[in-house]
Amino acid sequence: MTFSVLKRVLLGRPLPSQAFEQQRLPKRLALGVFSTDAIASTAFATQEILVVLVPAAGMAALGYLVPISLVVVALLVIVVLSYTQTLYAYPNGGGSYIVSRKNLGTYPSLVAAASLMVDYTLTVSVSVAAGVAAITSAVAPLRGNQTLLGVGLIAFIALANLRGVRESGRLFAPPTYTYIAIMTLLIGYGLFRTFTGDLHPLPVDHKELAHFTNPETMIGGVTLFLLMRAFSSGAIALSGVEAISNGIQAFRKPESRNAAITLTWTAFILGGLFFGLAVLADQLRPTLSESQTILSQMGRAVFGGGSSPLYIILQASTAAILTLSANTAFADFPRLSAIIARDGYMPRQLTNRGDRLVLSNGILVLAFAAGLLVVAFGASVSSLVPLFAVGLFTAFTLSQAGMVVHHWRLREPRWHVGIVINAVGAAATMLVLAVILISKFTEGAWIPTVVIPLLVVLFKGIHRHYATVERALHVDPDVVIPPIKHTVVVLVGERVHLGVLQAIAYAKSLHPQFLHAVSVVYEPEDADNRRAQWERFHLEVPLDVIDSPYRDLTGPVIEYVDKLDERWDSDVVTVIIPELVVRRWWQQLLHNQSALWLKGRLLFREGTVVISMPTHVLDPGEVKHPMPIRRRRRRRRNRRDQQ
Amino acid sequence: MTFSVLKRVLLGRPLPSQAFEQQRLPKRLALGVFSTDAIASTAFATQEILVVLVPAAGMAALGYLVPISLVVVALLVIVVLSYTQTLYAYPNGGGSYIVSRKNLGTYPSLVAAASLMVDYTLTVSVSVAAGVAAITSAVAPLRGNQTLLGVGLIAFIALANLRGVRESGRLFAPPTYTYIAIMTLLIGYGLFRTFTGDLHPLPVDHKELAHFTNPETMIGGVTLFLLMRAFSSGAIALSGVEAISNGIQAFRKPESRNAAITLTWTAFILGGLFFGLAVLADQLRPTLSESQTILSQMGRAVFGGGSSPLYIILQASTAAILTLSANTAFADFPRLSAIIARDGYMPRQLTNRGDRLVLSNGILVLAFAAGLLVVAFGASVSSLVPLFAVGLFTAFTLSQAGMVVHHWRLREPRWHVGIVINAVGAAATMLVLAVILISKFTEGAWIPTVVIPLLVVLFKGIHRHYATVERALHVDPDVVIPPIKHTVVVLVGERVHLGVLQAIAYAKSLHPQFLHAVSVVYEPEDADNRRAQWERFHLEVPLDVIDSPYRDLTGPVIEYVDKLDERWDSDVVTVIIPELVVRRWWQQLLHNQSALWLKGRLLFREGTVVISMPTHVLDPGEVKHPMPIRRRRRRRRNRRDQQ
Repeated sequence: MTFSVLKRVLLGRPLPSQAFEQQRLPKRLALGVFSTDAIASTAFATQEILVVLVPAAGMAALGYLVPISLVVVALLVIVVLSYTQTLYAYPNGGGSYIVSRKNLGTYPSLVAAASLMVDYTLTVSVSVAAGVAAITSAVAPLRGNQTLLGVGLIAFIALANLRGVRESGRLFAPPTYTYIAIMTLLIGYGLFRTFTGDLHPLPVDHKELAHFTNPETMIGGVTLFLLMRAFSSGAIALSGVEAISNGIQAFRKPESRNAAITLTWTAFILGGLFFGLAVLADQLRPTLSESQTILSQMGRAVFGGGSSPLYIILQASTAAILTLSANTAFADFPRLSAIIARDGYMPRQLTNRGDRLVLSNGILVLAFAAGLLVVAFGASVSSLVPLFAVGLFTAFTLSQAGMVVHHWRLREPRWHVGIVINAVGAAATMLVLAVILISKFTEGAWIPTVVIPLLVVLFKGIHRHYATVERALHVDPDVVIPPIKHTVVVLVGERVHLGVLQAIAYAKSLHPQFLHAVSVVYEPEDADNRRAQWERFHLEVPLDVIDSPYRDLTGPVIEYVDKLDERWDSDVVTVIIPELVVRRWWQQLLHNQSALWLKGRLLFREGTVVISMPTHVLDPGEVKHPMPIRRRRRRRRNRRDQQ
Repeated sequence: MTFSVLKRVLLGRPLPSQAFEQQRLPKRLALGVFSTDAIASTAFATQEILVVLVPAAGMAALGYLVPISLVVVALLVIVVLSYTQTLYAYPNGGGSYIVSRKNLGTYPSLVAAASLMVDYTLTVSVSVAAGVAAITSAVAPLRGNQTLLGVGLIAFIALANLRGVRESGRLFAPPTYTYIAIMTLLIGYGLFRTFTGDLHPLPVDHKELAHFTNPETMIGGVTLFLLMRAFSSGAIALSGVEAISNGIQAFRKPESRNAAITLTWTAFILGGLFFGLAVLADQLRPTLSESQTILSQMGRAVFGGGSSPLYIILQASTAAILTLSANTAFADFPRLSAIIARDGYMPRQLTNRGDRLVLSNGILVLAFAAGLLVVAFGASVSSLVPLFAVGLFTAFTLSQAGMVVHHWRLREPRWHVGIVINAVGAAATMLVLAVILISKFTEGAWIPTVVIPLLVVLFKGIHRHYATVERALHVDPDVVIPPIKHTVVVLVGERVHLGVLQAIAYAKSLHPQFLHAVSVVYEPEDADNRRAQWERFHLEVPLDVIDSPYRDLTGPVIEYVDKLDERWDSDVVTVIIPELVVRRWWQQLLHNQSALWLKGRLLFREGTVVISMPTHVLDPGEVKHPMPIRRRRRRRRNRRDQQ
């Protein structure tokens, strides 16, 4: 009762299934839901490139920023072109998983599924950790509670998603648009001021720089390996491109076209901001620092200091979009899980729509997994980032390899163009995947390399189980079941009460070939009393008394039924258990729960049917017989009075 | 499985009910079990008297020790004489509760029961807290973990008791006897040395004394009120006298005589040690200190310093007996609870004997309650002591007042003597109770004053509930139940499988006047598919499809059954639920548990019988049909192969 009230307050009233169509998103809200993750990565991807290079190159690292960003943007163009093909080819959604299942077979598709699930989970963890870091950098008193704040934020986002996808779009679009606007202003105004000579490169902070530079690594300088690692960090920016292709069905009709337009917008904004930031950093030359992000440093420089309103908006919307970018994963993970579950590789409950028509179970699973990661890595972005890109680029590669096979199989109009685009995409992303695995394996990339195969094994196990159940349950419509030969046992406790008489009457109505009552005694001397009591009722049913010296009810009853089953040529053994049902839960505590245990055990015994014969006892004073067997008319009147 | 193995290792193999007689205790072990509490109180009762008096009187407080101890010993003699009467009058045990129920009526007996239960719980908490204090005073690294140690000790004692009473006696007797021996030696050798002039009064430690004395309270000096409080603290020594009268049945035959002898021994040892300690303290004049108990100070003085082996034995056995004295309550609380439960004032489960023939539930309840107290009061003896004596002396008073009525009613031989003894006892303990309530009310005695009436209310509520159930279940042997008019509903899920066909066949075997199948759909468009599927099976049973727009199974089914019940003149509504049963618990997670919820809800619906029709699915590869309906012979062979 209390639980359902709380649920109403937190989630809102339930929505009927017919309301589903109305929940689809217009493009401007869809951009807020599905692109936040991709766009938000601009807030930390540039910094992550420097984190790799500065220890070896010092301030010279800034010179590599524009070239590396250009490679990342080129990769982005290739991947987005590739994915646009997919949006039209698979308008029902499913992205990498669907595409590889249709074209590459079961195992590649399961690898894609596992990769995406790992990646969505990491998206949530990394975004939330980065968002929390932004908040705690600004609000000093909150420092030290990063993990708690991270878990709280995840809970908040999960709740927003449990309320329903439309409300989520409303909630998340404003910060995304604010962030895009302020970043555009930062880059545009910043470059304008540098080119007009109004703004000069920032002075080098040698003290901060000393924290990052290491004389030993400086000797080696910038190796190819280091450049690969730096590029791998920058490639995180592509995370979130997959999201739209999985979520096509959340778009208004025509879904494919609207999704493709939204994807192009996303790529344009993401690429523009990412490249623009690299150019601006190359001009302003901020020093990598432990106390302030380079974005914050450039914001102060361009907007005129830490108290400028524009700087405050920049920092606040950065913190907001970082946190909320996790929402992309919350919009998409449940959809992907539902698709995988529909194919029988994940528990079916992931396809259930909740009261508010959202895939509640998927939302809860993601919140739990991401929360676990945040707790395990202490909400640290730099510890989580190396785990990040493996799943992402595995999924990209499989998806685009699948598209190549798709074009080859179907030979649709203009398939030559498509196959080239997707082949280039597949080759590029596979190369990047190799780069990431080689350059970041020992830093944490090994974790998804272990987890993804384990997930695939789990998927297969679940599928095998469902297949077994499927075969076991299958039956042809021409099957005829002959009349049943019943063997019935009525369980009798210490006393013969109305519930027992009703159970016997019920048992007789089955016209069993064998009907015995059975009673378990813990003290041998009770057996005679119990038999004598039974005689008094003249029930024409024999009573078997079982001695249980170890005071256990379940074991002896199961043993008794086993013997019965061996002796009699019966079809079904039915055990009737008279149960006492009281009004309040605390009253139930006053009665032995042994019948419950027995019911559980009998449920697992093959070929046994359990009948619960309840005896309802009402509140003090009102005594009412349970089933309308003898005094039916009075009972009904009583119940009406009570209502 | 794992749980039962753990249970075996911790508790030992189960014992049959016939083994009960062998579990009775010889006197020397009974003394260890039932007298530890009473004798152990000598380790702190003397100190508690000084804690009250020193702040007002300084070293002069020592002068009051012998007179107050004499009064306590006199009270002990009165109470023990009184209780010996009870042991013979009520050889089946039950002490204060039994005696007041037989002679004073229900309410006084419930007050006695509640008082005793509160008191046993406090016995455990205080003894364990004092034992932990003794341990942590000796082993410095353990300090600061008092609460954890207390809870651990309670768990240890509970476990020992769950293994069975005989083993407990073996475990607990040696420390008790060691403690008695070393204390006797301390007092005897100490007094010998002082009287021979070999040992002189200890020097006053003014620094320690300053911690306790308070110039303001010193002005008032020792008032009558203070003497009352000091006496109340000393009276704790009588705790545990009740224990034997409750536990008579654990003694070997003749129980009454053996119990009386053990009680006399206990009183003799307790009184001797308590008075002896007071005399020794009066001679040695130890200074009350925060770092060392007066017992420890006297031990050092008599046995010759902190490294003397006898001093170490004294301290170790003190710590041991204090901790283990909690065992008295663990031996007795469950017995008392079982007696009260048998009368219907406590949950019946408290009368169940566990695998090892002990009253496991009572042991667990006591361990939980005492653990809670230890946690709540941070394992501090001085905070717990004021709560202690109220319940004890309430129980004493009621018991002896009951004995007065007993003698008056029965007029047995020599009843005049008995009535005088018990009347003196009742008057004395009632006076002490008044003294305790007046002098310690604000210090904590108010807590039992509130808890005891609340427990009485709880007892009455439980009794009323059992009475209601009793009336509801009662039935005369001449009742005849006419044949039942059955209304049967078979719940059908998404697909028609073998389980459904079996459920229909089972339903038909009830020869119902009304038989429908019912299926719930969440999307309106599924309804036609479901009906079409049903048609294919030609089952001659109509299918009702219910639309559930909010995707809830339970609500619509209950509503459907309600309507059915209103429309049809049926006796019983039977709902048959086909259930999928898989081999392993994790496989069960892969299937919706909605049937379980529905079963729970239907159990609480009056006049409804629920039949679980299980479909068993075996491990991958092996597919086996659940019930031996069609391919019976093959199924049986399969099962035999599998075993």
